[in-house]
Amino acid sequence: MHKITIGLIGFGTVGSGVVELLQKRKNFIKNRFNTEFVIKTVCDLEIKKRDTTGLNKTLLTTNINDVVDDKDIDVVIELIGGLSPAKDIVVNSLNNGKHVVTANKALISNYGKELFKIAQKNKCHLYFESSVGAGIPIIKSITEGLVGNKFNAVYGIINGTCNFILSEMTEKNFSFEDALKEAQRLGYAESDPTLDINGMDSAHKLAILAQLTFGKFLNVKDIYTEGITQISHDDIEYAKSLNLTIKLLAIAKKHNNKIEARVHPTLISNNHPLASINSVYNAVYLDADPLGKILLSGEGAGRMAAASGVVSDLINYASKGADRRLICNLYDENTKLRLGSIDDVETKFYIRFLAGDKPGVLSKISGILGKQGISINSVTQKVHNKTSSVPVVMLTDYTSEKKLRIALKMIKKLSTVKGTPVAIRMEKLW
Amino acid sequence: MHKITIGLIGFGTVGSGVVELLQKRKNFIKNRFNTEFVIKTVCDLEIKKRDTTGLNKTLLTTNINDVVDDKDIDVVIELIGGLSPAKDIVVNSLNNGKHVVTANKALISNYGKELFKIAQKNKCHLYFESSVGAGIPIIKSITEGLVGNKFNAVYGIINGTCNFILSEMTEKNFSFEDALKEAQRLGYAESDPTLDINGMDSAHKLAILAQLTFGKFLNVKDIYTEGITQISHDDIEYAKSLNLTIKLLAIAKKHNNKIEARVHPTLISNNHPLASINSVYNAVYLDADPLGKILLSGEGAGRMAAASGVVSDLINYASKGADRRLICNLYDENTKLRLGSIDDVETKFYIRFLAGDKPGVLSKISGILGKQGISINSVTQKVHNKTSSVPVVMLTDYTSEKKLRIALKMIKKLSTVKGTPVAIRMEKLW
Repeated sequence: MHKITIGLIGFGTVGSGVVELLQKRKNFIKNRFNTEFVIKTVCDLEIKKRDTTGLNKTLLTTNINDVVDDKDIDVVIELIGGLSPAKDIVVNSLNNGKHVVTANKALISNYGKELFKIAQKNKCHLYFESSVGAGIPIIKSITEGLVGNKFNAVYGIINGTCNFILSEMTEKNFSFEDALKEAQRLGYAESDPTLDINGMDSAHKLAILAQLTFGKFLNVKDIYTEGITQISHDDIEYAKSLNLTIKLLAIAKKHNNKIEARVHPTLISNNHPLASINSVYNAVYLDADPLGKILLSGEGAGRMAAASGVVSDLINYASKGADRRLICNLYDENTKLRLGSIDDVETKFYIRFLAGDKPGVLSKISGILGKQGISINSVTQKVHNKTSSVPVVMLTDYTSEKKLRIALKMIKKLSTVKGTPVAIRMEKLW
Repeated sequence: MHKITIGLIGFGTVGSGVVELLQKRKNFIKNRFNTEFVIKTVCDLEIKKRDTTGLNKTLLTTNINDVVDDKDIDVVIELIGGLSPAKDIVVNSLNNGKHVVTANKALISNYGKELFKIAQKNKCHLYFESSVGAGIPIIKSITEGLVGNKFNAVYGIINGTCNFILSEMTEKNFSFEDALKEAQRLGYAESDPTLDINGMDSAHKLAILAQLTFGKFLNVKDIYTEGITQISHDDIEYAKSLNLTIKLLAIAKKHNNKIEARVHPTLISNNHPLASINSVYNAVYLDADPLGKILLSGEGAGRMAAASGVVSDLINYASKGADRRLICNLYDENTKLRLGSIDDVETKFYIRFLAGDKPGVLSKISGILGKQGISINSVTQKVHNKTSSVPVVMLTDYTSEKKLRIALKMIKKLSTVKGTPVAIRMEKLW
């Protein structure tokens, strides 16, 4: 029987899920892998506030070094999230010859390059399956399951909170605010949901996916990121009437030596499988050569979903032989690749604005768009009786971001247009 | 640089794809895995008829033993399909200490238990990712990516030919015969498509999936299997009007110590993601505990899709250390599990029959169903002007297969019912 000694740092929701799942799968792991995982230490700054029922009190500590410096510990599980002190924990653990399992997307997206090198230098493994899509085996599929392939694109729904909010708005006619409250009530959104709804969580995960698929470490700050706070119920209704659905998509594509990477609300056809991915579900498409389009989907968040990914990482570590090739060797860098500017990205656009119902306003707007070389595919103008302003929805043909932005600025300045026009990209997915 | 010597048996469509892909990925494999795959021998009974451009003629043989008995060959790739001589090739290769990669679903579903034991005895690996869903990493996801989970169910669309035919019938209003011809024209169906359209291909794959998820080797013959040949254009149209789609599903579920395993056309809601999986795409759902529902989808057939799975198997073998745990150890057997009878499976049913347009026929049929305890949820009777018989569609509530079969026999005997009633199961998927 192989014995693998674990130190767990961060005993919140996911940490307690990992302990529970290891306990539940104890016999299975023994029988199939001839391995026993022994949790030697559980560290949490607020360990006294946590429910540690079932854990021997002698395992508990608030001192990170009780884990990181313990020579008996083979694998450190980092589950505190954020950059500090998570980074020090991972760096010091690797430098002390320990393998690390983490679910920390901020850490891997910001410091992956540095951490993989440190892991490699120390001949240690660094696993992070739960950092994207929780337990959905996205990372393993890219790095191992599809290893015979090159990747042209990776895109999908990688934030469960936003997908839940948009689903509620679509299915139950909720306003954004009510849908967010419902997400918080059900535990799908934090009390401060900023990182989810402003798209940053998706940007972190997209940086990790782009690295794995294209071999390019992206600076998260360089990824164009737009959240869902501007999506109104009107947009959802217009989308429905056009047989479209609004999803927050993270998209990375490779064109020769240029990468485009962006996170924004996107109108997609109701016939596309992503349109059926609702509630807190995540879904990632990989455009692989020669395999073609691959879709992986499942619950991308939650206590046991994340725990499932962490435990799979542990078992995968255990099932490799002692002289196994290091997983961190997988993360090479293609130095030729460059991140392109969002200005050059071409999509169709849905534009909604409130126009004074005066003859001539549409021709003025068409003129502005035309000047930028933007063709209009359709115009919908709904008549409101009780107001002098009417909402107008225009669908454009393909145009660059830059041209559209210039046109929108000019449209906003028109005296007959009220407020800020809303623009949502329409993406043609395969 | 590690050198891994390969013998390839079967140089048809997939075999030549493997050679092409290994050539394309040569530098990538060298750089990332410090490994070189050397194809030493290519064996095919009809090697003279094959296009062997680019292969050194000294590699070619028609004699299987030139591969199986060659001490220099580390890995044998078996791509001839079928049971004989494929089984002997795999058994003899393993007994000669060679690792094996195969895409042969018939072989693994029929002889997996025996082959895994032989592999284990010889400390050799037996990989078969391409046997189900071609290069979609379904097998790796079940055995490694989701290894922290137990599985309650596995189901999905695992035959691309049938999915293509049903998609064409739905989208282009083709008849079954025309859709099949189109599939043959495009190379999606064999000239003899029997194994695909009668569901047997799906049954083979389902047996493999059930073994991996539940740890139970099923006899393919014991899996209830129904193909798509009875699906008429009328059924497709009725399904559309009910906001449903007909898919050939393979379904395996575990209830305590009982497994149900079946392949049949199934009516599912248009809102379900599987309803959007069209053309030759495959899609497999896993119901995992604790992770929940996981979906994997992609092209499940074709030259390069299958080659992608084979090459991923090869690289995965190469990236493991020398004392790696054997993958065949994963295939244990849960001896408590039993395959249940199809008689006991409960679903809703869609029933269509041609009824003489006489008063009383519906009440007779309702009476027969009522006697079996089968409730009717809805009845649709379309009026045809030029015939005295009208098609009637009934949707039942949940009932066992056994009860429905008895009722259908009695309905068929009614003088006012013409021909054989069509019954299609309606599955509630999550």
